[in-house]
Amino acid sequence: MPMSVKGFSAAAVGAGIRYQHRLDLGLIYSDRPAVAAGVFTTNRVKAAPVLLDIERLRRGQAQAILVNSGNANACTGEQGMELARSVGQMAADRLGIDPELVQIASTGVIGEALDTGPFAEAMPELIASLSKDGFDDLAMAIMTTDTVPKVVRKTIDVVGVPVSILGVAKGSGMIMPDMATMLCFLITDARIVFPVLREIVTTGVENTFNRITVDGDTSTNDTVLVLANGAAGNPWLDEDSPAAVESFGRAVTEVFGKLATKIVADGEGATKAVTIQVKGARDKDGALAAARTIANSPLVKTAFFGQDPNWGRIMAALGRSDCFFHPDRVSIAFDDVPIVVEGTGLGPEAERKSAQVMQQDAFILTIDLHDGSGSGEIQTCDFSKEYIEINADYRS
Amino acid sequence: MPMSVKGFSAAAVGAGIRYQHRLDLGLIYSDRPAVAAGVFTTNRVKAAPVLLDIERLRRGQAQAILVNSGNANACTGEQGMELARSVGQMAADRLGIDPELVQIASTGVIGEALDTGPFAEAMPELIASLSKDGFDDLAMAIMTTDTVPKVVRKTIDVVGVPVSILGVAKGSGMIMPDMATMLCFLITDARIVFPVLREIVTTGVENTFNRITVDGDTSTNDTVLVLANGAAGNPWLDEDSPAAVESFGRAVTEVFGKLATKIVADGEGATKAVTIQVKGARDKDGALAAARTIANSPLVKTAFFGQDPNWGRIMAALGRSDCFFHPDRVSIAFDDVPIVVEGTGLGPEAERKSAQVMQQDAFILTIDLHDGSGSGEIQTCDFSKEYIEINADYRS
Repeated sequence: MPMSVKGFSAAAVGAGIRYQHRLDLGLIYSDRPAVAAGVFTTNRVKAAPVLLDIERLRRGQAQAILVNSGNANACTGEQGMELARSVGQMAADRLGIDPELVQIASTGVIGEALDTGPFAEAMPELIASLSKDGFDDLAMAIMTTDTVPKVVRKTIDVVGVPVSILGVAKGSGMIMPDMATMLCFLITDARIVFPVLREIVTTGVENTFNRITVDGDTSTNDTVLVLANGAAGNPWLDEDSPAAVESFGRAVTEVFGKLATKIVADGEGATKAVTIQVKGARDKDGALAAARTIANSPLVKTAFFGQDPNWGRIMAALGRSDCFFHPDRVSIAFDDVPIVVEGTGLGPEAERKSAQVMQQDAFILTIDLHDGSGSGEIQTCDFSKEYIEINADYRS
Repeated sequence: MPMSVKGFSAAAVGAGIRYQHRLDLGLIYSDRPAVAAGVFTTNRVKAAPVLLDIERLRRGQAQAILVNSGNANACTGEQGMELARSVGQMAADRLGIDPELVQIASTGVIGEALDTGPFAEAMPELIASLSKDGFDDLAMAIMTTDTVPKVVRKTIDVVGVPVSILGVAKGSGMIMPDMATMLCFLITDARIVFPVLREIVTTGVENTFNRITVDGDTSTNDTVLVLANGAAGNPWLDEDSPAAVESFGRAVTEVFGKLATKIVADGEGATKAVTIQVKGARDKDGALAAARTIANSPLVKTAFFGQDPNWGRIMAALGRSDCFFHPDRVSIAFDDVPIVVEGTGLGPEAERKSAQVMQQDAFILTIDLHDGSGSGEIQTCDFSKEYIEINADYRS
């Protein structure tokens, strides 16, 4: 039986929000109000549930997360806000908690009014199904173009007390998150103060999920929510316990990172997971900008798919990034096979060996700019014919 | 017989630079030094011929353009510069002109040293073939993944004197210019002073080719070269003849624009030409940024291919652009069919009608932000399975 997180339960049901016969409505519940922090899409167009969550998270607390797939409740105006409040109220009423403690997340098609009927009808069963083992079902309920559910569990020791962490995520459209919104819910029974949790969540997301979301591409609904209910009873994680905080922060980031990797591996139509490592840049921001531009180049991605070590495309993408560098200092390698040194190619034999590296399911592309000590890493995947197929008729 | 431009001739031969049995080496020659201006890639990685051209254009004059396909002579270091100089010298020697007046342009695979052998061998035949009717052959010689040669001719009256303009271009990889470098050579027999020509060229490129090059994506070799040799004998086009300059500038921009449209229509794997029109922005820069982001979104492009009026993707792309707007004021239309008003969708009937519009080979997507008077337009095309096929094995 999988590890449980004290005080937390979850459930999912098929409410028929868009399709019949699939789980599409989920709930996470804590038996007591939890300290809560979130990170949301930076897109100027924010879906109603995102706007509602941001507003409600000002108090730094939450007790439940209601999540649906099939309808993103985005671009639905003031009516969308009312509908989000309304389904949250249904859950709050049945759970007997303050509606302000209910966070909402939605994923699916943009621009269609949310029909609250299926929510109302399914709510009794949903709440009756709450169980500490309900998270695998919940992970299924939030899938859209994902091919596998994504759950990561971890237990750590906080000053002699075992603390559990569980994360679920979705988002197979990582190549360009869109309707395939990225969602992540992480729950823990750790006892932690709000500002410390918020800092861990913000930094952790920056170093994990934001290293797979390429080129600022965001959906209207991207959401990471973290609830810590304190049920483990560990000594408070606060500003006075830096060592314990650091160790807990590392654990949270590790769970984020594993979920992020699962998202890349499940990229729409992806056949390869590629890590783009840029080093030797003047600073970290430059390195990350360069890695993002390369990771996001359709021409580089199609070359990955074709197993073609087309380093000219990599140089060209690098050259249009915001990163400063000297073209004649650049070296490029696929795993440990160098293909470019001092800006010039090493020839057919190096290309043949690099092409062999590219036949693997996963490999590392390293670009060394030899211009400083800044480095950054972005995970991406290739761009296949299947990506076009998936996205040319997503809605049909 | 096509119109000729006084004093200019051109030729192309099959030199076997990369492939046999195709035109791959071209030359444009003016019987007298011409006033010359150029616009080059903004990519930090500039191919050797681009660096050489920029250096040589400082004097504002040129008399010949030597152009090859098959090898871009990019990322070839100092050796690449020497090779570019060397092939230019061959042409200059045979033409009996100053080598500094020879501009070089190359397109093809990046990172392979240019073999000057085929140039040396083909040069006599190339120069012997120079003819005022050679421009169609030249347009063939610069094609890479282009499916059709691109030539536009225009004659105008400058203060009672007929002046001719002829432009050739390549660049079917417009979706993301890469190996499929964009090249354009425009020649005219107009008599014009250098600063005025340079201004016309810079502004003209900005309003045409830079409105199809999406998201700053550039190749290492992108080049626009304009030569005006004065053979028409018109009264000087200079700062003292604003009306004539304006009319001539319009003509040059029109030729640029027609070539740009041909490039979009020949986009790699493209099945549709789409004009993205953003209006009602706070300023023009914002409108262009929004139009570029939408024009460059793989998810929007795949929806174009799928003839799916997926306006949620348009909103999401808009929302991650650098353009400020209020989501609840946005309206979107396909041709004259509105699909979004005040940020919300108009429903299935509007989507059905929009899908009909998208069945056309070309249509206009209009986004009105209702927030100001800034507007901007970008031409783009869809993202098809064929694009992946072309780019997954470009080099094989």
